[in-house]
Amino acid sequence: MNYKIIIRTLGFLLVVEGIAMLFALIVSLIYNGPDILALFESALICMITGAVILAIFRNASKEIGKREGFVIVSSVWVMFSFFGSLPFIFSHSIPDITNAFFETMSGFTTTGSSVLNDIESLPNGILFWRSMTQWLGGMGIIVLSLAILPIFGIGGMQLFAAEVPGPVADKLSPRIRATAKKLWIIYVFFTALETILLWIGGMSLFDAVNHSFTTMATGGYSTKQASIAYWTSPYIQYVITLFMVIAGTNFTVSYLLLTGKFKKAIDNEELKYYLFFIFAFTLVITVGLVFTSELGFEHSFRDSIFQVVSILTTTGYATADYLHWVPFLTTVLFAVFFFGGSTGSTGGGLKIMRIVLLLKNSYYELRRIIHPNAIIPIRFNKKTVPEQIITNVLAFFMFYVIVFLGSTILLMLVVPDFPSALGAVATSLGNIGPGLGSFGPAENFSTLHPAGKWFLSFLMLLGRLELFTVLVLFSPAFWKK
Amino acid sequence: MNYKIIIRTLGFLLVVEGIAMLFALIVSLIYNGPDILALFESALICMITGAVILAIFRNASKEIGKREGFVIVSSVWVMFSFFGSLPFIFSHSIPDITNAFFETMSGFTTTGSSVLNDIESLPNGILFWRSMTQWLGGMGIIVLSLAILPIFGIGGMQLFAAEVPGPVADKLSPRIRATAKKLWIIYVFFTALETILLWIGGMSLFDAVNHSFTTMATGGYSTKQASIAYWTSPYIQYVITLFMVIAGTNFTVSYLLLTGKFKKAIDNEELKYYLFFIFAFTLVITVGLVFTSELGFEHSFRDSIFQVVSILTTTGYATADYLHWVPFLTTVLFAVFFFGGSTGSTGGGLKIMRIVLLLKNSYYELRRIIHPNAIIPIRFNKKTVPEQIITNVLAFFMFYVIVFLGSTILLMLVVPDFPSALGAVATSLGNIGPGLGSFGPAENFSTLHPAGKWFLSFLMLLGRLELFTVLVLFSPAFWKK
Repeated sequence: MNYKIIIRTLGFLLVVEGIAMLFALIVSLIYNGPDILALFESALICMITGAVILAIFRNASKEIGKREGFVIVSSVWVMFSFFGSLPFIFSHSIPDITNAFFETMSGFTTTGSSVLNDIESLPNGILFWRSMTQWLGGMGIIVLSLAILPIFGIGGMQLFAAEVPGPVADKLSPRIRATAKKLWIIYVFFTALETILLWIGGMSLFDAVNHSFTTMATGGYSTKQASIAYWTSPYIQYVITLFMVIAGTNFTVSYLLLTGKFKKAIDNEELKYYLFFIFAFTLVITVGLVFTSELGFEHSFRDSIFQVVSILTTTGYATADYLHWVPFLTTVLFAVFFFGGSTGSTGGGLKIMRIVLLLKNSYYELRRIIHPNAIIPIRFNKKTVPEQIITNVLAFFMFYVIVFLGSTILLMLVVPDFPSALGAVATSLGNIGPGLGSFGPAENFSTLHPAGKWFLSFLMLLGRLELFTVLVLFSPAFWKK
Repeated sequence: MNYKIIIRTLGFLLVVEGIAMLFALIVSLIYNGPDILALFESALICMITGAVILAIFRNASKEIGKREGFVIVSSVWVMFSFFGSLPFIFSHSIPDITNAFFETMSGFTTTGSSVLNDIESLPNGILFWRSMTQWLGGMGIIVLSLAILPIFGIGGMQLFAAEVPGPVADKLSPRIRATAKKLWIIYVFFTALETILLWIGGMSLFDAVNHSFTTMATGGYSTKQASIAYWTSPYIQYVITLFMVIAGTNFTVSYLLLTGKFKKAIDNEELKYYLFFIFAFTLVITVGLVFTSELGFEHSFRDSIFQVVSILTTTGYATADYLHWVPFLTTVLFAVFFFGGSTGSTGGGLKIMRIVLLLKNSYYELRRIIHPNAIIPIRFNKKTVPEQIITNVLAFFMFYVIVFLGSTILLMLVVPDFPSALGAVATSLGNIGPGLGSFGPAENFSTLHPAGKWFLSFLMLLGRLELFTVLVLFSPAFWKK
C-alpha cells in the first residue's frame, strides 16, 4: 500500500475544498453577511493544511493502484465532511460538531437529510456552502460511477466500462480526467440551464442557483424550511421535476442526447425502465390522490410526479407531506425508496440497472426450472450479461438488505418507533433525505440522539459509495500483502 | 400434459384425506361430541368424491413427469384445504367459508394463523382435525422437500439430492416411497415421544397428542386460546422448545443421529448455523429481558429461547407476548421471522441453508473484488456449490423480497396500519403464525377483511411450496408444448 500517495492526494483535494469555500465567501461578501469571517477561516484552514501535506509528501511515488483507490475514495468523503463542517461551526449556524458533521456528510453524499429547524435564519454564504457540498458531491459521484467504480468491479458498473469513453485498464489512468471533464461540462450546462429557467419563473437568482445545485446533485437541500412547497407555482415545480429526471439519468446517455445521437440514447434499456417506473408509480399515486383527496386532477398529478421523481431519483425535495396521504399511498411511495436513480447519474439507491438485472434473473430462473438443460443467459442493452456480474449484483443486493435490516434493529435502540427507524435507515442508505414517522418531509433529524446521527452519517457514506467500496476496507484480505 | 393422471392422483389423495378424517371421527365418538355427524359427512364426501374420480380415470397412463408434478403439488394443498374445511363448516365451529378455508390452509401449510376467538369452545373431534391438518401438512412437506423439490431443481434443494437415499432421475420414481417411509417413521417416532413427555409433565393425553402433532409439523395450532402460555410449567415449555428444535432440523440429519451416525450428522454445516442462530438471538433477547423486565434470569431465558425457537422454526406457539417487550427486542425478534427452519425439516421461511449460501456469496464477493482474477468458489458441507445453485438461491431470495414488499403494499388496502400489514405478510409467507400490531401473539386474524384472508391464504401456499413451485404455473413457458 502506497500510503504516501494516498495522503498526498487527500492533501491536494483538501486544497480544492478550500478553494471551493472561496466561492461561498464571495457570496457572503456580496451580501455582507455575518459569516464572512467563518468562511474565510475555514477556507484558510483547508488550504494551508492541504498545502502543508502537499509539501511534505511532494516526493511520493505517483503510482496509484486499485487498493490505494479504495482507500482514497472512502477517505475523501470523510475528510470533506469534517473540514466542510467548519463554516457551520465557526458561524454558529450549527455550533454542535455532531450536527454540523451530519449536515455536511448529508451534503457531500447528496442525501439531503437536515438537522436545521430554521433554514431561513442562516446567512446566505452558509446556505450557499450547504448547497455547494451537494453540488461538489454530485461531481464526485459522476467521476466515481463512470470512471472509477467500473475499474473497482463493483455492482455491475463494469457493464459500462465498454460504453464509457473512459479507462478500462487496471490502473487509474489519466483518461479519467478526459471522461470527467466531458461529463462535468454537461453537469454545469444543466445546472446553468435550470438556474435560468427557475429565475424566469420568479425565483430569486440566489434561490435559483442553490436549487439548481441541489437538483443536479439529486441532493435535495433547499434554502427554505418548507422545501419546494414554498413555491406554489406549478411552473417552478414542473421545471424542478424535469431536472430531477435529468439528474437521475445516466450522464453518458445525456451526453449522447446532447451530441445528437438520439437513436443510441433511446436504445438504452435502463432509461426505458427508469421512465417506466416513474410513469407506473405516478399513475398509481395520481389515481389514489384523485379519489382520496380534495385536490383536483392537475394538483394530484403534480404532487404525485414530484414526490415520485424526488424519491426515486433520491433527491428528497418535498411539495407535499406524503405522511398525510392515506396509508396505502404512503406505502406505495415507500416502495420507491428502494429504487434509486440510473447508474452513472448522481442518484443513489439500489439503482435501476441493478433492479432490472435482479428481476430478469428471477424471471429467467422460472424458465430455467422448466427447461433445466437449456442455457438461458440474461441480456441487457442487447448484450449478454456475464454470470459473474449477476453474482456481483446479487451480492450487492444481499449486502443492502443485511445492512438495511441490521441498521434498522440497531437504530431502534435510540428510535423506539419502528416506522421512524425503518424510514431513517432507508433514506440514509439510499441518500434520499426525508423518511417516515418522526423524520417525515415536514420534520427533520434534529431530534435524533447524537449516536443515531453518527450512525446515519455512516450509512449515508456506505450507500453513496455503493457499499463495497467501504466494506472491502473492513475485509482482512484487503490489508494482506 | 397428462391431465388424467393429475386428476387421478388428486382423487386418490382425496380418499386419503377422507380416511384421515375418520381418525378425528373416532376422537369425537370417544368424547361423544356434537361434531360426530359433521365429521362423518365430511369424511364421506371426500371418500366418495375421490372414489368416483378414481373410477372414472382408472385407465389413466401412469406416467408422471416433472410438469405434472408441479401441477399436482400446488393442487393438492388447495384441494385439501377446500375439503378439509368441511368439518369446520358442517359443525358450525367456523360457519363462514372464508374463515374455514383460511383456518384449514393455515393448517395444511403448517402456518398456524387462526381466526378463532374461543378455541376451548370447539368440540374435541374438530380440535383434533385442526391439529391433524398440520400434522398431515408436515408429512407432505417432508416428502416434498426431500424427495420432490430436488427433482424440481428448486432453491438449492438439489444440494441434498446426492445425500438423501432417494431418487435422482428426472421422473418421479417409486423410490420416493422408500425415502418417505423412512422419514415418516422418524416423524411418527418423535411425535409419540413428545406426547409421552408432555403427558408425564401433566398435560392431558388429548392436549399432549394435539400439541405433539402441531410441534412436529412446526405448525403452532394449540387447543388453548392462550397457546402454550396456558401451561406455566417450565418443564412443559422446555420439552416443547426441544421438540421445536428437532422439528426444525433436517430430518435426514435426525435419521443419521438416530441410526448412530453421529459424526456425519454433526458435520452438517446447516445444523451448526441453525444452532448458532438460535443461540445468538436467544442470548441477545435474554440479556435484553433481564435488563428491561421484572422477570428473573431463568424466566427471561425461557421466554427468549421459546419465542426465538418458535419463530425461527416457524412454529408460532407463544408463551409471552413479544409485542409488550421494549421495541428494540420486538424488532430483534422480528428479524427472526426471516430465517426459517433447516431444509428438509417441516419448518418454512427462507431456510438456514439459503441464508448461509447468500451470506457466503456476499462475503466472498468482497474477496473477489480485491482479487478479480482468482476463482473463489463457495463451499457448503465441504463441497463446492455449483454457480447455478447460487443463482437459483439468489433468484429465490429476490422473489421472496418482491412478493414480500408487493404483498405488504397490497395488504395496506385493507390493513391501513403498516406494522400489522408487514407482520401479517411476513408470518404468512414464512408459515409462522402470529404477526405484529393487530395480529400479535395475543390476537388473531378474525378481524381481517375477507379479501385479506384469501390473500394471506395464497401467501401461505406460496411460502410453503417454496414460491417457485406455484410461480412456474403462472409462467407461459410452463404451458407451452
